[in-house]
Amino acid sequence: MLGNCLENVRKTVPLVHNITNYVTVNDVANVLLACGGSPIMSDEPDDVSDITSICGGLNINIGTLNKRSIESMFIAGAKANELGHVVLLDPVGAGASALRTNTAIELMEKVKFDVIRGNISEIKTLALGSGTTKGVDADAADTVTEDNLDRMVAFAKSFAAKTRTIVAITGAIDLVADEGKCYVIRNGHPEMSKITGTGCQLSGVATAYAAANPNNKTEAVAAAVCVMGLAGEIGVAGMQAGEGNSSLRNRIIDAIYNMDAETLNKGAKYEVR
Amino acid sequence: MLGNCLENVRKTVPLVHNITNYVTVNDVANVLLACGGSPIMSDEPDDVSDITSICGGLNINIGTLNKRSIESMFIAGAKANELGHVVLLDPVGAGASALRTNTAIELMEKVKFDVIRGNISEIKTLALGSGTTKGVDADAADTVTEDNLDRMVAFAKSFAAKTRTIVAITGAIDLVADEGKCYVIRNGHPEMSKITGTGCQLSGVATAYAAANPNNKTEAVAAAVCVMGLAGEIGVAGMQAGEGNSSLRNRIIDAIYNMDAETLNKGAKYEVR
Amino acid sequence: MLGNCLENVRKTVPLVHNITNYVTVNDVANVLLACGGSPIMSDEPDDVSDITSICGGLNINIGTLNKRSIESMFIAGAKANELGHVVLLDPVGAGASALRTNTAIELMEKVKFDVIRGNISEIKTLALGSGTTKGVDADAADTVTEDNLDRMVAFAKSFAAKTRTIVAITGAIDLVADEGKCYVIRNGHPEMSKITGTGCQLSGVATAYAAANPNNKTEAVAAAVCVMGLAGEIGVAGMQAGEGNSSLRNRIIDAIYNMDAETLNKGAKYEVR
Repeated sequence: MLGNCLENVRKTVPLVHNITNYVTVNDVANVLLACGGSPIMSDEPDDVSDITSICGGLNINIGTLNKRSIESMFIAGAKANELGHVVLLDPVGAGASALRTNTAIELMEKVKFDVIRGNISEIKTLALGSGTTKGVDADAADTVTEDNLDRMVAFAKSFAAKTRTIVAITGAIDLVADEGKCYVIRNGHPEMSKITGTGCQLSGVATAYAAANPNNKTEAVAAAVCVMGLAGEIGVAGMQAGEGNSSLRNRIIDAIYNMDAETLNKGAKYEVR
Repeated sequence: MLGNCLENVRKTVPLVHNITNYVTVNDVANVLLACGGSPIMSDEPDDVSDITSICGGLNINIGTLNKRSIESMFIAGAKANELGHVVLLDPVGAGASALRTNTAIELMEKVKFDVIRGNISEIKTLALGSGTTKGVDADAADTVTEDNLDRMVAFAKSFAAKTRTIVAITGAIDLVADEGKCYVIRNGHPEMSKITGTGCQLSGVATAYAAANPNNKTEAVAAAVCVMGLAGEIGVAGMQAGEGNSSLRNRIIDAIYNMDAETLNKGAKYEVR
Repeated sequence: MLGNCLENVRKTVPLVHNITNYVTVNDVANVLLACGGSPIMSDEPDDVSDITSICGGLNINIGTLNKRSIESMFIAGAKANELGHVVLLDPVGAGASALRTNTAIELMEKVKFDVIRGNISEIKTLALGSGTTKGVDADAADTVTEDNLDRMVAFAKSFAAKTRTIVAITGAIDLVADEGKCYVIRNGHPEMSKITGTGCQLSGVATAYAAANPNNKTEAVAAAVCVMGLAGEIGVAGMQAGEGNSSLRNRIIDAIYNMDAETLNKGAKYEVR
């Protein structure tokens, strides 16, 4: 049950090391606290090895990457792998610039990731690679819809198998897949796209969930995706006249803070394929 | 009409590349989403050329500048100029340090800006230059008031003509001028100065407005200034007992999120001189 | 009276230069405005000397430190010392990594600090040093409780004497000590630990308070600690159904914005030992 995954986070309070962008970093810290985890941020090459050593999970987010933080991603990733920590990649903007695409791909080559979370464009970019040769996955569509769902589920499973990770593709319909199964999740609300960083927040939460549920990480990541989506629904439902995206940002983090296993089990809308 | 400028932003959803300070960056991202634009942040020299290429506008803000981000400002500025994108300069702290003053002046020399937005001290610093020779503009006063309004309007037009930009000087009374005309705007509320970053937010919004209204950029920047000021008035009017600057920050972004053409046309308080 | 310290901040509006982490920097800026001060941020070596020169206080926070910002801390610290400005050290994560521990210790050797504010683990790390030789303070417990209060008060005074600073050790019970006396403060609420950066915020506020009260800095820092704790109590008391840590963050800053001398004098819970 997804609710168990939530309770394991609140019980074990996983410490998550975040190398993340400075746009949404404060929200990532607060949402990690809200979900029951504990955040620490560090992106200096001389600091990250020590910091990641005291943590249980590592969340690498390439938004606002720079040469210093990129170096730190590789150092922290290697250390986290050595220690058997959960490591997540959020390839923000892969496909939007050569540096972002190449950094994400090189990270995938040199760091063993447990989870990769992105939108369909980012994941498609990683599946195709940065080269000019287009692989079989090139026909992956640009959004996941009810119409192309079978094909996208197959794509997600195939990408997960090829990269030996759990892949979370988030959008109107979310997919969380490993080699063998795919959670198709229909929580969330379009209004969430009007807030900066709900994806970054989810990556932080998913790292905490995977770290606290080492024996069923796929289910844990699916639980994190449901938590975020359900919090979005609760947040939008609570909006008062005159409120907008800034209030909604607060409402979503508040909803995660108040989320319990029962609410999650009742509100999660998913099927496993 | 200013309302048309607003509607063009919501229709075209301009993607704005921001090289901005890490203090207010999250608010800049959320306010860009609130006004109908879309934000992306990048300040790594190896990344900014690709990122700015996919955008419609570039917002350069020199708060918390560093050697890396300064290099990125010049690279991104050159690329945006090459592509004919709207480029805005927010000279945060020009006059407060030699590095900030000199960086702003060098940017003005090497990058063609469409808009420069700052407070009177910052704009005065740019008008006077960093050297010891004081130009004719040296008598520009330190605040724009009803008493010195004629002189300040002339200063704004003269600065706009000399720099071939639209200049927005914001304060108790806001001025938005090009060579030929000056919008004198009386929206806003003093309480806005108790929130960090309303100026940075306005620069993001103004970039989106100018990008979405390429044929009447001066009016578009004036519209953005009215939107921000009017949102401040709506925010302050909505404050409940016990609320302070943190709630007001949310209320202002929410008000921008809910602003429509009718509200703007009714609430905008300006004259053109 | 603590209320006088508050009023001196509102009267003199101290400008505080913050070299601080990018996680909580926006909240630090807004809380400085809320308490009556004025924030400016800069962490570029070529910029910090000019910026700190125009300020009244310097707040050095080593969270998310990097080589560039570390260099800036030493430059700004030297300049602030030269000008007789108040300087505060927030040793975020001292003890969690060698870089953080060593940076904090080297800062203490080369910069004259007026105030050091941290949690007990951080202060204990500074007291013990980074070497392997454990000093007499090694027996300092890991939390301040009613049971070990006498011993912790003695530790705080001894650390203050040895370092010639005012030390603020914050936790469930807060201690603010100089060589001769120790404020034992029982304001605050456990829920505050669910928000990122209340410690960073306090360091900003404490810098403003010390800068505005040069003749009784220990009392001023104690006042700042009471203000923060009392704002936490007011914030928690005001929470509505469905609210969580994101709303609480807003409520605390709002409470500081609305805090006056009378509220502080009535609500402060402290004794001097």
